[in-house]
Amino acid sequence: MQHILGLDPGLASLGFGSIRADTDSLGLLDYGIIQTPAKTDIGLRLQTIYDDLHQLLTTHKPDLVALEKLFFYRMGNTILVAQARGVILLVLAQHQLPIIEYTPAQIKLALTGYGAADKHAVQEAVARELKLDALPRPDDAADALAVALTAWFQR
Amino acid sequence: MQHILGLDPGLASLGFGSIRADTDSLGLLDYGIIQTPAKTDIGLRLQTIYDDLHQLLTTHKPDLVALEKLFFYRMGNTILVAQARGVILLVLAQHQLPIIEYTPAQIKLALTGYGAADKHAVQEAVARELKLDALPRPDDAADALAVALTAWFQR
Repeated sequence: MQHILGLDPGLASLGFGSIRADTDSLGLLDYGIIQTPAKTDIGLRLQTIYDDLHQLLTTHKPDLVALEKLFFYRMGNTILVAQARGVILLVLAQHQLPIIEYTPAQIKLALTGYGAADKHAVQEAVARELKLDALPRPDDAADALAVALTAWFQR
Repeated sequence: MQHILGLDPGLASLGFGSIRADTDSLGLLDYGIIQTPAKTDIGLRLQTIYDDLHQLLTTHKPDLVALEKLFFYRMGNTILVAQARGVILLVLAQHQLPIIEYTPAQIKLALTGYGAADKHAVQEAVARELKLDALPRPDDAADALAVALTAWFQR
């Protein structure tokens, strides 16, 4: 059995989703977001991510961490997300965790069979695979579960 | 008297330069770079920056840290530098240090009186202000001293 933690890196909202996977079964462990308030100093926001992610890894003890690859989209935002991502990669290294990265297209393809699937189709696939009654919320947590499931399907 | 630490953020080479400033005197304390090898895993490189910068702050105990502002230049490189910068901002926040940021133009203007001065003119101004016999080396350490001096001149 394997615990896979998926992360959707961000500064305002860092999505996480943890699954338990066996050769013949798949289960949801936990999901949610680590939030940092927009009007707070960047250093304090990065400290929140650092402390909360340490706590999360200590609690969940994943065997593998799957991350969405960072793409370049908007100037200011990319720098903020990359700064948060630096702290996330630091914490994962401090916990000596193996990581694997996927592009959005790889995640969509793994979950729906279609690399350009929309967000809703991906969330439905997450709910179906994990036998959830409703779509996981918020979006960043659903995205984190999607990347964790991708890591499992690709093995 | 004030200890000002200047930093020139980078992943491969993080420049630092520390000055001691009084109302009527200015002195060099230390300068150099924190290097991380290019072929190493990004997580290990960020851990080196985290550990070495903690060590540096514990040794130097600056009152103020001055940083070069991050600009967008090349896609891949900006993301790498921003990831390193996230770890740097985290460590500065963990040490509860006040930070101040300057653009390259502000630094050039403060040191040479000309916002589009070349690198050599800035390095000569650093050497002159700090009464150094030679230009400080490597470039990233000289840049870090330049940003520390800018913080002092601007007060």
